[in-house]
Formats: sequence, C-alpha cells, structure tokens
Amino acid sequence: KGQILFTYLHLAADAAQAKGLIDSGCVAIAYETVSSDRGGLPLLAPMSEVAGRMSVHVGAYHLHVANGGSGILIGGVPGVKAAEVVVLGGGVAGTHAAKMAVGMEGRVTILEKSLDRIRQLEDLFGAKANIIYSTQDSVEHYVSQADLVIGAVLVPGALAPKLITKELLKKMRPKSVIVDIAIDQGGCAETSKPTTHSDPTFVVDNIVHYCVANMPGAVPRTSAQALNNAVLPYGLEIADKGWVKALQDNKHLRGGLTVCKGKITHAEVARDLKLDYTKAEESLAA
Amino acid sequence: KGQILFTYLHLAADAAQAKGLIDSGCVAIAYETVSSDRGGLPLLAPMSEVAGRMSVHVGAYHLHVANGGSGILIGGVPGVKAAEVVVLGGGVAGTHAAKMAVGMEGRVTILEKSLDRIRQLEDLFGAKANIIYSTQDSVEHYVSQADLVIGAVLVPGALAPKLITKELLKKMRPKSVIVDIAIDQGGCAETSKPTTHSDPTFVVDNIVHYCVANMPGAVPRTSAQALNNAVLPYGLEIADKGWVKALQDNKHLRGGLTVCKGKITHAEVARDLKLDYTKAEESLAA
Amino acid sequence: KGQILFTYLHLAADAAQAKGLIDSGCVAIAYETVSSDRGGLPLLAPMSEVAGRMSVHVGAYHLHVANGGSGILIGGVPGVKAAEVVVLGGGVAGTHAAKMAVGMEGRVTILEKSLDRIRQLEDLFGAKANIIYSTQDSVEHYVSQADLVIGAVLVPGALAPKLITKELLKKMRPKSVIVDIAIDQGGCAETSKPTTHSDPTFVVDNIVHYCVANMPGAVPRTSAQALNNAVLPYGLEIADKGWVKALQDNKHLRGGLTVCKGKITHAEVARDLKLDYTKAEESLAA
Amino acid sequence: KGQILFTYLHLAADAAQAKGLIDSGCVAIAYETVSSDRGGLPLLAPMSEVAGRMSVHVGAYHLHVANGGSGILIGGVPGVKAAEVVVLGGGVAGTHAAKMAVGMEGRVTILEKSLDRIRQLEDLFGAKANIIYSTQDSVEHYVSQADLVIGAVLVPGALAPKLITKELLKKMRPKSVIVDIAIDQGGCAETSKPTTHSDPTFVVDNIVHYCVANMPGAVPRTSAQALNNAVLPYGLEIADKGWVKALQDNKHLRGGLTVCKGKITHAEVARDLKLDYTKAEESLAA
Amino acid sequence: KGQILFTYLHLAADAAQAKGLIDSGCVAIAYETVSSDRGGLPLLAPMSEVAGRMSVHVGAYHLHVANGGSGILIGGVPGVKAAEVVVLGGGVAGTHAAKMAVGMEGRVTILEKSLDRIRQLEDLFGAKANIIYSTQDSVEHYVSQADLVIGAVLVPGALAPKLITKELLKKMRPKSVIVDIAIDQGGCAETSKPTTHSDPTFVVDNIVHYCVANMPGAVPRTSAQALNNAVLPYGLEIADKGWVKALQDNKHLRGGLTVCKGKITHAEVARDLKLDYTKAEESLAA
Amino acid sequence: KGQILFTYLHLAADAAQAKGLIDSGCVAIAYETVSSDRGGLPLLAPMSEVAGRMSVHVGAYHLHVANGGSGILIGGVPGVKAAEVVVLGGGVAGTHAAKMAVGMEGRVTILEKSLDRIRQLEDLFGAKANIIYSTQDSVEHYVSQADLVIGAVLVPGALAPKLITKELLKKMRPKSVIVDIAIDQGGCAETSKPTTHSDPTFVVDNIVHYCVANMPGAVPRTSAQALNNAVLPYGLEIADKGWVKALQDNKHLRGGLTVCKGKITHAEVARDLKLDYTKAEESLAA
Repeated sequence: KGQILFTYLHLAADAAQAKGLIDSGCVAIAYETVSSDRGGLPLLAPMSEVAGRMSVHVGAYHLHVANGGSGILIGGVPGVKAAEVVVLGGGVAGTHAAKMAVGMEGRVTILEKSLDRIRQLEDLFGAKANIIYSTQDSVEHYVSQADLVIGAVLVPGALAPKLITKELLKKMRPKSVIVDIAIDQGGCAETSKPTTHSDPTFVVDNIVHYCVANMPGAVPRTSAQALNNAVLPYGLEIADKGWVKALQDNKHLRGGLTVCKGKITHAEVARDLKLDYTKAEESLAA
Repeated sequence: KGQILFTYLHLAADAAQAKGLIDSGCVAIAYETVSSDRGGLPLLAPMSEVAGRMSVHVGAYHLHVANGGSGILIGGVPGVKAAEVVVLGGGVAGTHAAKMAVGMEGRVTILEKSLDRIRQLEDLFGAKANIIYSTQDSVEHYVSQADLVIGAVLVPGALAPKLITKELLKKMRPKSVIVDIAIDQGGCAETSKPTTHSDPTFVVDNIVHYCVANMPGAVPRTSAQALNNAVLPYGLEIADKGWVKALQDNKHLRGGLTVCKGKITHAEVARDLKLDYTKAEESLAA
Repeated sequence: KGQILFTYLHLAADAAQAKGLIDSGCVAIAYETVSSDRGGLPLLAPMSEVAGRMSVHVGAYHLHVANGGSGILIGGVPGVKAAEVVVLGGGVAGTHAAKMAVGMEGRVTILEKSLDRIRQLEDLFGAKANIIYSTQDSVEHYVSQADLVIGAVLVPGALAPKLITKELLKKMRPKSVIVDIAIDQGGCAETSKPTTHSDPTFVVDNIVHYCVANMPGAVPRTSAQALNNAVLPYGLEIADKGWVKALQDNKHLRGGLTVCKGKITHAEVARDLKLDYTKAEESLAA
Repeated sequence: KGQILFTYLHLAADAAQAKGLIDSGCVAIAYETVSSDRGGLPLLAPMSEVAGRMSVHVGAYHLHVANGGSGILIGGVPGVKAAEVVVLGGGVAGTHAAKMAVGMEGRVTILEKSLDRIRQLEDLFGAKANIIYSTQDSVEHYVSQADLVIGAVLVPGALAPKLITKELLKKMRPKSVIVDIAIDQGGCAETSKPTTHSDPTFVVDNIVHYCVANMPGAVPRTSAQALNNAVLPYGLEIADKGWVKALQDNKHLRGGLTVCKGKITHAEVARDLKLDYTKAEESLAA
Repeated sequence: KGQILFTYLHLAADAAQAKGLIDSGCVAIAYETVSSDRGGLPLLAPMSEVAGRMSVHVGAYHLHVANGGSGILIGGVPGVKAAEVVVLGGGVAGTHAAKMAVGMEGRVTILEKSLDRIRQLEDLFGAKANIIYSTQDSVEHYVSQADLVIGAVLVPGALAPKLITKELLKKMRPKSVIVDIAIDQGGCAETSKPTTHSDPTFVVDNIVHYCVANMPGAVPRTSAQALNNAVLPYGLEIADKGWVKALQDNKHLRGGLTVCKGKITHAEVARDLKLDYTKAEESLAA
Repeated sequence: KGQILFTYLHLAADAAQAKGLIDSGCVAIAYETVSSDRGGLPLLAPMSEVAGRMSVHVGAYHLHVANGGSGILIGGVPGVKAAEVVVLGGGVAGTHAAKMAVGMEGRVTILEKSLDRIRQLEDLFGAKANIIYSTQDSVEHYVSQADLVIGAVLVPGALAPKLITKELLKKMRPKSVIVDIAIDQGGCAETSKPTTHSDPTFVVDNIVHYCVANMPGAVPRTSAQALNNAVLPYGLEIADKGWVKALQDNKHLRGGLTVCKGKITHAEVARDLKLDYTKAEESLAA
C-alpha cells in the first residue's frame, strides 16, 4: 500500500498475482497496455526492436552444422549464393530483423499484409529486399524455400497467427532454422513452444526451432536502456504530478492502470480473471 | 596515299576492303586492335559500356506483352516480385548491365568465371546483386529461371562461348527475353543471329531474342563522345609526332597498324586473308 | 441481376454502358472511386506505381535514334554526360519514375509543388536527385533543358494541368522525349493525345510524345498482381459479410458504389450522365 | 601410387603423414601453398572470407549473457548505443568481418598497417567504419574500449602477431568477446588456444575467447562450394594436360607440389621435417 | 494604410515598431506565427534547414587553428580518426546538420528526446550516425568528448533549453567549437550570446562559440528562394481572394495576423506589449 | 653533422638552405621525393587528402556573402537548387574533394583526363557525381557555370597546368569561388597567387580566390598524424638498420636523399642549384 508498481504485469493469465496486488492496496500500472498517440504500445516496441535485431544472428548461429543447422552462411561469400532469409511480418520486429539480414548480405524476403507498410518498406529497402504481399500462397512459396525463417507477425495483445502450419513445416528445406520472435504471443509456427536461453532450440521434422521466451533478456545492457528510454517520460510525469493527477491527465498512461485501490481497473483483465471491474477514471476520481 | 585511316576496320573478314587499302597506299590503323598497358582493348571498352547499359532497358521494353515478352516489369512494384535478371559475364559490359538492372530494382544474378573479378563485383554490389561462380550447372540453373538474360561474355577478338545452348533455351521461361550483347562476336546463344535496330528481335522456342549488331549505334550522342574520349590521346600523339614516330614510340598504337606502305602489318589479318605479312616495326623503319 | 461487378468502370463518359448496367439490375462498384483512410485512391495507386516505373525505360528506348529520339543514353557512360531527366510531379507515379531514373544514373530533376512532399523526397533521394519547387518558371527552365520529360502530375479524378504548353514545347531540345503518364487524365502536355502499345509515339515540333493509354497493360504479370493485392481486402470483406453489409460498414468501399438496384448511386456520375441520383446509403438501406 | 592427392596437407607439422605420402609414391599437391599472379594464396582466401563473415555473428551470440558475454547487442536499437567492434587487420578476413559488423550496425573500427589498404578500405566503407592506422598505441586504445574484438591479422604461412598481450587483456571491458580468426596461425591474443565448434569458448581474465580452429567447418554448404570454385581451374588443368604438364606449365600450381616420386619437393617442408629436398622442376623433368 | 505587410515581425520585443504599425492602419501578418496542418511553423522551417546545413561547414572552418579551433578535420583522412560531431536535437535543423556532418564523414552523434523521432532518424541514417536518447547524462557524456557541438534544440516560439551549462563547458575538449543554431531563441549554451557574420565567434573557457544571429543571411541566394517557396501559396491566396477572405478562410494564415485595423490581433503580442487585444476573427468580420 | 634531417626540404628553390645543409655535414632526406612501389609520392599523398577534404568547406565558407561569395549554400535545401561544384582533376586531392562535395549534397562535376581513373571514379560515385572527360571545351563549359571550383590538378613535382585562364575567369559567375589546392605547384588558375590562413582570399574579376599555401597547416591534429602514419615505416627502417643500410636497401627512401656527406645527391636539385651532383649510391658506398 502506498507503493506504485510500474512494470510488465501480464495479470490476465496470473490470477494469484492479481489477487496479491489487489490485496496489497498498491497501484499497479502495466507496461504492456500503456498506449500512445501514434497507436501501438510504446513500452513493448523497444523489446520488439531488440528481438528483431537479435533474431538474425541467433538464426545464423543455429544454421551451423554443429548447432543442428544446414551449414549455410547467411551472406554466402563472393561467388557462392547467400542464404534465403524469409521474414514473416514487416512491423517493428520484422523490419529490424530485415535490416540485420540485409546487413549480413542474406537474400531477404519480407512478407507483409498492409500495402501502406509495404510501400514504406520499399522506400527503406529498395532493391535490397524482396517485399511481397502476404497471402497463404506467398507464405507457402517463400517459407518452403527458406534457409532461415524469422517469425515476426506480432499482434500486440493477441495470439500470433499460425502461419507455419505442420503441413508447411514438412515442405521446408531440411535443417533450416525458424526463429520465432512471436513466441511470447504463442508463436507463429504450430510446432513452436517456448524455450530458454540455456537450451534455446528443439527439432521437429528436421527443422530447428529457436523459440526463446524473452529474447531481449540475453542482451540486458541494450534492452534495459531501451526500456528506460521509453519509460522515462511516464515515470517523470508520475514523479512530477503525483500518480493520481498523472493518470488523470494522461490517457495513455491510464491505459496501463490495472489495479487501483483494491480494484481491477482494466476491462480485459477483469473479464479474463472473472473479477469485478471498476473504470479507471472512477477509481481515480474517488 | 598520304592519308591516315584510324577507325574500326575488321579487315580479317573483308578481303575486298583490305585489298583496297593496300592499293591505296594509305596508313590504316584499326581501333579494334589498339591495346593498353592495363591489357584490354581501350577503343572497344566504351562500346561495351554503352551496350551493357542499353541492354537492360531494351530488355525491359521487349518484356512488354505488346513486344512479345512475358509482361513482367523489371523492378516489380511494392508487394510484387521483381523480374529475375541474369547477366552472363561480369566484365565491362556485364558490370554496366548489372548496374542498370540493380538500379531498376531487378533481382540480379551475375555469373562470372574469374574469382578476382567476382571479389571486385562483391565490393561494388554487396547484397544488391547475387554474384555466382559460373559453371555449366550454375548457368543452367539461373538461365532457366530468368525473365531477362543479358549475354555479356565478350572475349575481345574471339568468338563468344555459346553458353545458352538450344537445349537450355527449351528450359527457359516462356516469353523470356535474351539480349545478346555478344552478337558482334557471334553471340552467346546458339540461336542468336544478328538483327537491326529497325527489326531488333525474333522468337525461337517462345524466347524473344534481341541481337542487334552495333547496339551503340542507337545512342550516337553518347557513344560517339565516349569513343572520342578514348581515341583522343592517340590522335594527339599522331598529330604531335607524326604518324611514323607515334607508331614507333607507342607499342599500343602500333598494335593497331594493319596496312602500311602497301603491306599488311598485322599477323592475324595477313594469315586470315592469306596475304604477305610485314612486321609493323620493319615497315615503319623502312 | 444478382451479379456484383467490381472493376474499373469510368461510367461518367460512357452513357451506353451505364444504361446497360442500370437495366441489368447488377451491383456495380467502381475501382476508381474506392477511397482509403489515408486519402488517395488505393485501387489506382498500384497502376501509378507501374506506370511510373515503366516510364523511364520506355523513355530510354524512344530516345534511340531508330525510334525518333536524340540518341542519348540515360546514364551516359564514364566520362560522358548523362541525360537530363525531368519528372513533373513527385507523387506516387513521379517518385517511382525518379527511382528508376536515378537507378539508371540519369541526371534527375523532380518538380513538385508540396513542400511537405519535397522534404520527404529529399530524405528519400538525398543528393541523387535535384528536387525543385514547381513554379511556371522552374517548369520552363528544366523542361527546356531536358532530354526526357516524365509527365506525372496526376490528380486523381481530375484533368491533369497542362504544364507543357505549345510554346514550351517549341523551346525543348530537338528529338527529346515526353512520356505522358497523365494521359488517362488528359495528359500534361497540350499536344498529348492517347496512343496504343502497338503505335506508341507521335512527333510534334520535333519532340517525341509517348502517350500510351493504360500503360500498365504492357506488363500484366506485374500489374494484375499489384491490383489483386490492393483489391483483395475489399473482395474478402464482400465475400465474408455479403455485399450489402460490406458496403454499409465500409465507407471507403461504398465510395465506389455506382449502380445499385437500377439506380445511379454516385453523385458525379449521375450529374455527368444527367440521370437520377440515389444516395448509396439509401439504396442499401432500402 | 598413381594417385594425385590435391588438398590441404600441412605436412610441415606432421612427419608421420609426410612419410606415408613419400612411401605411397603418390603425387601430393598442397592447397595451402598454391600461389597466384596477384600474390596471396588463392586456395586459402575463400576460407578467410568465410571465417571473417562468421566471426561477427558468433561474436554477437557469445555477447549474450547466457553465453558469458556482457549483454550488449551489436547494433544497439534506436536511441541506445551500438557495440564497439574492433577488427584487427584489414585484409581478406578483416574486411569481410567489417562488412558484416557494419551491416549489423555496430560501431566499427578497423586497424590496419598498410596505407594502401587503408585507402581502399576508405573507398569501400566511407563514413560507415572508422579506419585507423595500426600502431601499438592505437591497438591498445581501441581494444581496451571494445565490446567485440575480431582478430584478423592473418599472415599466410606465418605465425600471427600477438597483438593482444596479457597486459592488454586485463585492460579490456569485462565480459567482452574476442573472436580469434587467426587461431590456425597461432592466434593474435597471447591467451588464445584452439577450441572446437562443440565447446567453442573459454574465459581468461573475464574475457570470452572464441578460438575455434577451422571455423569454416561450421558452414560446409557455403565453404565447400567456395573452395570448389577456387580449386576448379587447377583441377581442370590437371585433368586436361595430365599432372606432369600441368605442374610444368603452371608455376602457381607447382608451388603446391610437396611430394613427388617419393621425394619432398617443397623446401620449407623438407627443412622442417629434416628430409631431403628435391626441386619440383627437377622431379617433374626426371 | 491599404498596405499589407507580410514578413517576419517579431513585434513582442519591439514596442516602437508595433506602435508604428498600429498607427499606420496597415494589415501586418507575421511569418513567424503562420501555422500549418502538420503542426510546426512552415515559414520558419526553411530557415532551420539552411542554418542546420550551414552549421557544419562553419564549424569545420572554425576548427582551423588559425580560427581558434583545435585543428582537427571533420572527416579525418584514411587512417586518422574523424572529429566527433555532436548534434543536440534531431528536429529540422539538427537533422540537416547531421546529414552534412555524415556527408563530411564525421563521427556523428545525435541526441534527441522523442523516441518517435529517434526511430525516424534511425531509418534515415542507419549505422552512419549514433542516435542516442537525450538525457542530462548522455548530453554530458557526448558533449564533453566532442570536437564540434551543433546546438539545434529549437523549440519554435520558446527559449531554447540551456543544455550546455557553464559547468559542462569546462569539461569540453580545449579549442572545441560550439555552433549555436538556437541563438535566435537565446541559444542552448549558457555562455552563448549573439554575434554577427563579420565577427562570428568568441571564446569562453577555451571553447570557440559561433553564435551568429540570422545565420541564413549568409546565403541569401539559397535562403530567399527557400522562403519564397514557403510563402508563395499564402501570397497567392491573398492575391486571389483578397486579404479579408484569405484570412477568414485559412486559419493557418490567420495565425500570423498581428495588426489589423489599428488593433493588435495576436494574443501573446498584445500581452507582451501590454496593449489591447482584438480577436483576429472579430477584426476581420468587422 | 651526425644528424639525419628527414622532412620536407624543397631545396631546388632555396639555395641558401641547400648551402647550409651541405656545410653542416648532415644527411638530408626530402619527404617530397621519397617514392613507392605503386608510383606516386607517398609522403605527399596524405597532404593531398587533407587539402582535398578541406577545400569544400573552405569554399562553402567563402561563398557566404559576408566573405565575398555569391551567397549560395553548397547543398541547397529541399526545393532549392544546390550549388554547382566543379572539381578539376580526379586524383587524390580531387577525389577527396568530390567526396566531401557529394556528402554536402552539392551538384558535383569531376573533370579528369585518364579514362582508367574515370572508370574508378564511376564505380566510386555512380550517379552521385557527374564525371566528365577533361578537355579544354569541357573545362570551359563547366567552370563557367560553377559556383565553386576546386583546382586539384596536382602533378607531383611539376607545375600545375593553368586550366583557368584569364579569359575563362571572365566567363565565370560573379562572386563564385575558386579554391586552388594546386597553389603549392603554382596553382591552376592564371590569376592564383599564394595566400595565408590569416588572409586567405583575394578577388580578381569578381571571383574569390582561395589560394592558401600549405592548407593542411590549418588542421595539424589531423595532418600531423596522417603524415606520421606515412613516415613511420621509413623512420623505423632507418632506426633499425642505420641510415646507410636503410638507404642502400630501400630505393624509394633513397629517392629522397638530397644531401649526403657534403654533396648534393639528387640530380634535379643539383641541376637547379647549379651545384655538383653525386649519385646517391656512390655517396652511400663511399
């Protein structure tokens, strides 16, 4: 009581912790539902950037034969073909993955559904990446020819679509690698299940799956600073105005308010946990 | 007599003209056999540059369905795959063709035999082109998947190797286009035969062949100036020193001397025409 | 009756077809007036991309002397000046044209009226293109020095402004080429009139005019796919919800509804054809 | 006997194998001493390219905290500083390492001794890498501030200089990573000793050492093809001419001839093994 | 009276001129408070672009020892370290400064507070600039290591924050240079005070300060044209519609209306000058 | 006596100093005549790099109206034309000048006589610079349209050609700027005469001339280090072997030996000073 907890909460799937927070009397604000003027979830974006950038070098590493992969080098060498890198999704994580894959001189294809985003990607990558409208057909075509697939179809707050079905997996090149960045949202391969940094991969149907939950945990010097940068303005607002006024003034911050004065103030969390729901505005005004 | 003829001659295949020059008593220096310190034929290189650069836009134009092609746009558009452009040979003509094809955002593969050259191309293009060691296998693999093939395997003064055999032609995508820059050396497809700017293409086995002899003739404002730049130092040397001393001093210019004082002074030409051969040095010293 | 026609209609200028559709009892939705959240006409944009990209290689081709042009190569060769390419308009079509012209190493000037757009173009092209605020003066200055002019001042749904007047045409370099992408909106040269892919050019005052209507028809493999990508979300919405609900829910799709239940439901079309106009919402609700 | 062995031999350190080859009566040509017109050892270069390119992603991977590293991401993310990557040596391996490190958006410094090479690197990288003349001072300055050091001072056929002394190691940032590509020539850190792909790293003074011998063995699909491309012309020459004539005609191939007709024909190998030495030319002529 | 004055006014600090304008009966519209749909002040932006781009070459010039600087060349030369250029603020001025500094091959760090803007800068510069979230700590760290600091934290219409305190100045490298673009808003160094083009710099604590007010005045050929481009649409609207209707129709233009019919019509100006304030809308309607 | 003087000497024009050195009995080695395997003068090249890079920002600075220039900004701003920068000579100095001018987004033309060099420049700059074969005509055409001319036609050890004649000067744009890097070889404008960093410019025919002798003296932190890097290997060789043996072993170093044992050992210097000449080899052997 009297404490403000401002961090990742993920209470919807964690009734015990929710109860503890309710009983404590604290104010709990969840990073993952703070919003912004531009849409998107500003306290998740830095983690997508980190995971997207990491995905290519972990993929390159697990393509080594000693790590179960097919033994191809992402960028090839002069005279020898580069690896085919397929990035599913051209959002924050996918774009950063594609930047790294292009930088390592892979043959990169990005599959994306939004034409507006496709046009931005074309401005960004020009002829350096193959940017393709995502359909079931195009996903099948490119995934089945890939050496490395980066699963980056992150829909914040929703389950990732299972673009790589079990059937598609069987059509992939033997010993190819899937890095499933979307694993924290359930993964974008039907065969994905979370792994850890100490035992990061498993093999299904001769395809290496890298499905580490919380990938950014591997590079805390970078990811902690990225997160701090994103959190700082909100923290300063709370410190400057006091939490009540800060939450009243800033609707985006208020989107993160989950537990307040012993009540759940976030509709989805209340519904998933089957608890009473109090509107954040009302709780603050009380 | 008393005139100096300094231009393209190609006498080896033209006995009549050779005889005329011999009888005239003129001094005939052939552009096509003037050499340089760096190797290569400096008065042919500009024409390879022009033809290499032209080849991609003529290929793009003949890919239009109205011109017999398969109706694919070289660079695609955002969300739609670009055309596969395969450049046979990474020398002067091929490199300039590849620059244009990359600039138009095609998916470019260069096939080249020299590893030294492959490494230079990698420095030049990085991830923007796929640079592959040329073997019969790799030629077959890439040509059979190409939308546009640029034949740029020019070996100055020799017949071009027939990399695209009749069998390979049958495996190509229907209505693909071959631009055979090597046509002046016989072409690099077995089915190539010279055409003209007024009727530039013909179709064999559903493949459009663009085989215009003297491609640079289409853009004389550019190619004449390019040639002038290359010829100028030799012309100045002749003007400054007189032709005898210029040819004595400059062995590269002397390499071009073909007819002098009524004699053939170029060994290959003499052999091909079955005429007497006089060494250039002797003829000059006389 | 009972059919849904979803394609380009252009009924305002085609009374006969309009009558036929009215009588048929079909539902006719016009691609060309479907709108989007971002403004613009999303089912026209892909065609502007295709036409913009095509315009430079067709311009390059018609600059050949054999095709009536002045015989200059877009990118020149090392040591020889490149062609001056002037792009009128920095919208979708103009930007794609400029990308290709820069890629082919032309000396590119883009003339554009919107300072916001000018700044985006500067971020995109940097020093690779000369981006100039469009005024009557600057248009005159650059067009009169151009080797190739790309007319890309497309104002969707309106006549293109006649930036190249008959007087300006007379000041242009002899045998320069105009590719008038805006021809479907009347063209941006006073002397432009539509041509076809089989006979694409004509000459006025020694200037080659390329004014092919429906340029994207030359590359159907690319343009059909581009269009499909843009149409797909609307098609799926119609299929999923039924046409009535889809048109009721989606105001952008509804913007395309032109004939419904035997009535014209598009104000401009009704006015131009002097037919009765029924509001789309009312027709759907009936 | 009657067999030609053409592969990596490294006989100088392997008396038993040398004896076996002598006794067998075979012709043994060592890849590692075949030379080329351009200097350098053309059958080693592809392996330097592969190792150089691999070095950055293995470094990135071992910078993960779970792998002992300091937890910094090579390229950082927007708003957060990238890792400092220091490449010792700007030859083949170092240049390819630098390309990858720049591609991954690290802050890259290349230390190189040859001013001619420094100028080529500047043309290649421009402002994207910091290219510094290598002196003891500059090595100390940059290595002590590095997050990742790539040891790429390969002098073919000689021991690598020990640029990272034990003293310098103590000044490095804790949990930084050294990838010592030069390990096959003894390594460029005093503390380096060979490791394997299955157990690739060890820690000295809080610095992670990656010293895998035969790095290219991890990506055989790429490295075998690269090697084949380099070997092919020599193989063809042997096949076409017979080994005697091929070795007589081609002095570069002859540089690889180590065992012939029961004699050691390579001076250094003979000296190191204290065996009789027969000149290759004499052996072939016999 | 009867005249329209449309230019920079800055009346808030100039009571005499304000009075004159009031008495004259003219209509005075101030460039500096005309707004736009996109936010920002469109008639100030061109001047920020000019000043941002100028700042780097004036910094480079004053780094010469003869001009008081430390004698380092912005881009170094091959083998010698480039200068550290720190740009405070990644808005219009800062971005253009960074473009020039990157173009001159300096080692560029941009400090910026907005994460959205940071991400745009990352797309624009990639690995060519170090883009860092601006905090007091990061400002101190980078400024104290800089050879050239560009002060570009312009907040239109407000005083610039004093990021370079007197304490921080003392930690800077001797003979470094500060170019304070923000000087027209008071400067971003505590020690900044306006100078002129004829005597542009002064030294405090061994640091060269370049604080020229109205930097764009040095390059009138460029800045006048840039301003004209921005002003033109407003001028045309006034000319086409008459000033009353233009000001009534266009709220952004109306934002600039400061003196109308003998009254101050701009709230802040009225307040600062302690004069009566009449709403612009009312004055126009009268 | 007993001292080794290893620095720039330029004795040919300095009889007094030459006499002093002869009398002193010292060993004097001149930087400016030390040669290298690659041709060129390795101890002059770094100074050309520095001067080339400086030339553009000093040109930009003197284009300010307050400094006598025409008031154009090198890179323009979005929507406003950039300055025309003409670089005479594409050697070391000219290439570095062009890099900076392109980086500052000027419209850059390089005039160069060597086609081999022109092709290298095209690979380096692509469409970012206009690379033109240098003839009297092309020099006149481009110089007369330039805003900034960089004179970089340095022929080491020879007078620079006077490309900018007094007549051509009169055709230049008023208040344009010439930066004459070649001033230490007499300059490449007929009107050039040496100036100093404290009074760097003068005006002839309304054209600003910047002709500072020893430009690199302005940035000693960069140029001293660049020079040290170049000198170091020679210094080490002298220190390791002693000067006699070092000069005997290394013919490039010996090329710099000018005074030895009281004799002039450099042919040109002896001739210009009308002193006895002793061959370096003989003097060392004595």
